[in-house]
Amino acid sequence: MGKINLLNDYNSSAHPHVIDALRWTEDKRFPGYGTDAETAAAAESVRHLIGRAVADVHFLVGGTQTNLTAAAAFLRPHEAVISPASAHVNIHETGAIEAVGHKILTVPAENGKVRAEDIRAVIEGHTDEHMVKPRMIMISQASELGTVYTLRELRALRDICDKHRLYLYIDGARLGYALASTACDIELGELASVADAFYLGGTKNGLLFGEALVICNPELRADFRYHAKQHGALLAKGFLLGVQFRAILEDGLYFDLARRANAMAYRLASGLTEAEVPLLASAETNQVFAHIGYRQLHRLEEKVLFERWGREDEKGAPIRFVTTWQTTEAEIDEVLDML
Amino acid sequence: MGKINLLNDYNSSAHPHVIDALRWTEDKRFPGYGTDAETAAAAESVRHLIGRAVADVHFLVGGTQTNLTAAAAFLRPHEAVISPASAHVNIHETGAIEAVGHKILTVPAENGKVRAEDIRAVIEGHTDEHMVKPRMIMISQASELGTVYTLRELRALRDICDKHRLYLYIDGARLGYALASTACDIELGELASVADAFYLGGTKNGLLFGEALVICNPELRADFRYHAKQHGALLAKGFLLGVQFRAILEDGLYFDLARRANAMAYRLASGLTEAEVPLLASAETNQVFAHIGYRQLHRLEEKVLFERWGREDEKGAPIRFVTTWQTTEAEIDEVLDML
Amino acid sequence: MGKINLLNDYNSSAHPHVIDALRWTEDKRFPGYGTDAETAAAAESVRHLIGRAVADVHFLVGGTQTNLTAAAAFLRPHEAVISPASAHVNIHETGAIEAVGHKILTVPAENGKVRAEDIRAVIEGHTDEHMVKPRMIMISQASELGTVYTLRELRALRDICDKHRLYLYIDGARLGYALASTACDIELGELASVADAFYLGGTKNGLLFGEALVICNPELRADFRYHAKQHGALLAKGFLLGVQFRAILEDGLYFDLARRANAMAYRLASGLTEAEVPLLASAETNQVFAHIGYRQLHRLEEKVLFERWGREDEKGAPIRFVTTWQTTEAEIDEVLDML
Amino acid sequence: MGKINLLNDYNSSAHPHVIDALRWTEDKRFPGYGTDAETAAAAESVRHLIGRAVADVHFLVGGTQTNLTAAAAFLRPHEAVISPASAHVNIHETGAIEAVGHKILTVPAENGKVRAEDIRAVIEGHTDEHMVKPRMIMISQASELGTVYTLRELRALRDICDKHRLYLYIDGARLGYALASTACDIELGELASVADAFYLGGTKNGLLFGEALVICNPELRADFRYHAKQHGALLAKGFLLGVQFRAILEDGLYFDLARRANAMAYRLASGLTEAEVPLLASAETNQVFAHIGYRQLHRLEEKVLFERWGREDEKGAPIRFVTTWQTTEAEIDEVLDML
Repeated sequence: MGKINLLNDYNSSAHPHVIDALRWTEDKRFPGYGTDAETAAAAESVRHLIGRAVADVHFLVGGTQTNLTAAAAFLRPHEAVISPASAHVNIHETGAIEAVGHKILTVPAENGKVRAEDIRAVIEGHTDEHMVKPRMIMISQASELGTVYTLRELRALRDICDKHRLYLYIDGARLGYALASTACDIELGELASVADAFYLGGTKNGLLFGEALVICNPELRADFRYHAKQHGALLAKGFLLGVQFRAILEDGLYFDLARRANAMAYRLASGLTEAEVPLLASAETNQVFAHIGYRQLHRLEEKVLFERWGREDEKGAPIRFVTTWQTTEAEIDEVLDML
Repeated sequence: MGKINLLNDYNSSAHPHVIDALRWTEDKRFPGYGTDAETAAAAESVRHLIGRAVADVHFLVGGTQTNLTAAAAFLRPHEAVISPASAHVNIHETGAIEAVGHKILTVPAENGKVRAEDIRAVIEGHTDEHMVKPRMIMISQASELGTVYTLRELRALRDICDKHRLYLYIDGARLGYALASTACDIELGELASVADAFYLGGTKNGLLFGEALVICNPELRADFRYHAKQHGALLAKGFLLGVQFRAILEDGLYFDLARRANAMAYRLASGLTEAEVPLLASAETNQVFAHIGYRQLHRLEEKVLFERWGREDEKGAPIRFVTTWQTTEAEIDEVLDML
Repeated sequence: MGKINLLNDYNSSAHPHVIDALRWTEDKRFPGYGTDAETAAAAESVRHLIGRAVADVHFLVGGTQTNLTAAAAFLRPHEAVISPASAHVNIHETGAIEAVGHKILTVPAENGKVRAEDIRAVIEGHTDEHMVKPRMIMISQASELGTVYTLRELRALRDICDKHRLYLYIDGARLGYALASTACDIELGELASVADAFYLGGTKNGLLFGEALVICNPELRADFRYHAKQHGALLAKGFLLGVQFRAILEDGLYFDLARRANAMAYRLASGLTEAEVPLLASAETNQVFAHIGYRQLHRLEEKVLFERWGREDEKGAPIRFVTTWQTTEAEIDEVLDML
Repeated sequence: MGKINLLNDYNSSAHPHVIDALRWTEDKRFPGYGTDAETAAAAESVRHLIGRAVADVHFLVGGTQTNLTAAAAFLRPHEAVISPASAHVNIHETGAIEAVGHKILTVPAENGKVRAEDIRAVIEGHTDEHMVKPRMIMISQASELGTVYTLRELRALRDICDKHRLYLYIDGARLGYALASTACDIELGELASVADAFYLGGTKNGLLFGEALVICNPELRADFRYHAKQHGALLAKGFLLGVQFRAILEDGLYFDLARRANAMAYRLASGLTEAEVPLLASAETNQVFAHIGYRQLHRLEEKVLFERWGREDEKGAPIRFVTTWQTTEAEIDEVLDML
């Protein structure tokens, strides 16, 4: 019997509908590099979801790839990114943004989210040509701690961007979970109206792989495919991305899966709270961060897969549980029973 | 009824065994980023194929990605690549090598292949710090024109590399076709012994996607995964690459598919020769380049998909046919009947 | 007694007026990074010379630095440079353009100069996102062979640029010599009206160091100082550049020096022709390229410093003589006497 | 009458001996790019100063240029720099390190200096290929706040470097001031033995421009001139650097100038303390940081040039005074009289 897997949301294959869709391609032929009809239809579905007729949609393979290609395409060499210090793009992408030449200026992120005043301080501190020029805010929705930016918070960031000529880029590796969150007061269309660009993540929610980058701001659109190709991000069999996204977006499956995963996270969080295990952030999406004592930790580790997350102290360790559409109530209850 | 598709070798999905293998993953969980057992087994299969116990094998998603990550990982900033002027890496990768900072020095490529004396001339012409330092020869096997480097030719390049401290990197997007060619006098193990690094291409021969980069030279191994991650080339669900490669390498399927495709190319080439359509290079693998008169061209274009390939003149156009394991004798014969 | 020095035009210090000007700074204080009054006045002098009130003028230290900073500032990552294959920027700057991420597409250069039709062929061959996008032509005036582009030739290049949305950048390391050439039918103002940017070289004509980059096209102006700083090209004591350029531009000294050097080159070229030493390009500025037999070569090498230039054959060697404002008639005559 | 200039240490020309040395070059000819005898002699002087026969010495034009060329030359793409958050290289070089592809990981800097334990925490936090690999510590001596690392502090950093295979790079823009400081317990030779590379800054202490980069670690030496050229950092008339360094290093002039400047800073600091103006860091070299009330601030601003330095509050402003060898006792006393 395997352990209960709450390790991450990229440890299993795709949803059966997605595999079916891939099976369907077997005896067909497609134009290369995403110029096929399936991909066009998937892009149309995304535009439909955001309620916009004209946004550019590009399907890429993974999140780091999408982030670095966007930064390379959108910024001039002296322009910098502002991101939370804890951001994936700052810590866990092996310097991908710097490798395409751009500095990341970091701000603190309480509860996973940046605050307008910290952003403003960075902008005000960069005043002349001896310093980089802040140009793009990169945040993720849901945040690194699984929390969700509210419409008000996003609009505050948008205001700063408008005032200082910055772009707002939203890393949506877990955007499905955010939109399906009970804490979320924003729809995809609103998100598309505050962001200059964002991506809708597939890898972590039902696909084998794939991220749908949406470029809302027309001034960022030109020649994006050149940049993608230059970074090895233009998949030869691009139709595989179109086919998968069509399958997952059909009948709201993408959001159903996210909702299911979130529900399991909420169940887990509420059980942890009952068991007096302190949470490190409010459990708003499919990630639950807790600080757990060593005795309970060791008991859990025998039967459950999860990650230790940060600096441990004498009392215990911060840990992360991640749920997916495959997580079951029985699994959650079994975990809770151990505590 | 669709047209006969001789357009390229990345226009269809995967071989059924590969799709089956993906289906098999559906109810399983895997460690991330290629640290799973399937990927380890696939790497072992590759090492077995080349008869070496210790080469490093990394599975990446596509060819441009593999080439650019290798150049970034293997070279210091002032070091340059030598490649044929016609090379994919020089023309058709949107400056990916330059984008990671390296100049490409080009040499002519007769019949698709570089000659040792041209390489030598480049090396001799780069003598001091005002010029880049040639450091890595990048060729492809099969070549851009579908021809195959012989063991003697590869050894001549190896000798230059040894003499001048250069690396030899072989782009193997179509390496299966090359090794399965009747013109080929080299086995994979020998190739691995002349190359410092090469990749065994999956995308163009039976996989959904995937290239197996083999680093033979120990001094190039350190920290390769860092470079892959930095370029967005470390697939989150890396097990998808392992699973596919295991499926295609089993029982020699990879080479069977290539052999089948080559046979169809030979049949086509021999028919073209009989029909007095001049070939532009000897048809040694799954690509057939011909110069065709406009009347025949237009007739073909009604029922066959293929690419125009280069500069046309008053007599006709250079074109390219590409066969795959899915190409049938009936299709080839139908094409030949039109001429 | 030293040898006669015809080796290059950067082997001596500055003109006495320039040294005097530096001496004058000794007891003064200046704002940093070129924000001083001397630099502003020098920029004004340059604008006056080109008859334009609004061009941006930036003073940088050297030619490679100026070229690479311009390419970094003016181009997006997927955009490429077109230059003659023989260009300094292509061969003798250690891949500086590629190091800031841009591919150089080369064209042949007969008599040192590119031809419009070759440029056009490159542009027409780059049609989609799998290839880089040609965006900036980089030529030098005078050319690598010391020849001078005529107004008609420059206008032909301008036409291509206008038609295909390319920039025309002119490396003016030896622009003084070109403008002072008897073969030149263009004034600085006209050059500024065909070029999007160019630089007026000081290092090779009377200064200790310094190049004046002129950005004519307003869309290339934004934030240039950021790029300069990022590449270490914003000299802390920028006033040294302003002071030197003021001194050399005063009363036309810059052009006087160039004219003097050119005259010596013409005298040498005409003597060589009389002595039946074949010239490799018409001697239009301060460089004279000749093909010289080995006997004469060895005789010359005893008393004269000059460079061998390119591939030698059984008959003799291509060589280069370079004159400067310090070259005397007596020196030229002594050289000619040896032949 | 001009104001008293305590603005920075790059606002005046060179020491008269240096100007004399330049005047001496006027009627001479030199080989290009630093291959001349003056430069060789200057390098020898530097090696003599550090008591080492074999260190490589390269003369570059400016500090940012030296730092970025060193980072480009010494690091592989996935390797990162660790520096104090307040470092010039982190804040005031317009992302130069990131522009050559490397992330800077920052640590706090109390009193301007990094602490071993903070460095260690960064190293321990970077454990796998999803994160950059810390590889080079970049500090400056004197620090950004004018303080001086002691031998013990430097050895603690060296120990970390040895243990974790890191390089220690010391930005010596103001190294003369540090070595001439009464707070300094280290000689240049000792510094050279703890650092893998460092530079001895000329621009801020007596030269027109110029920094002498010393590469102590043999594994960092290969091909450095290629990197310099690639970044436009190989001055055509390199002899200007050699000549200047020879002049300033002769008879200890370089250190005399620094000592004089330091003495003025100490006089100023002691006067400020007497006047109960709080210092922000101990005044160990030629920079004095103080927090000054608005009334005194405005009075000073009428007659003295200095910089405001950081965030002001209701009580007053942090400011910086910088002394040089040209600063006189009378000037300092006049400043103190105003308080």
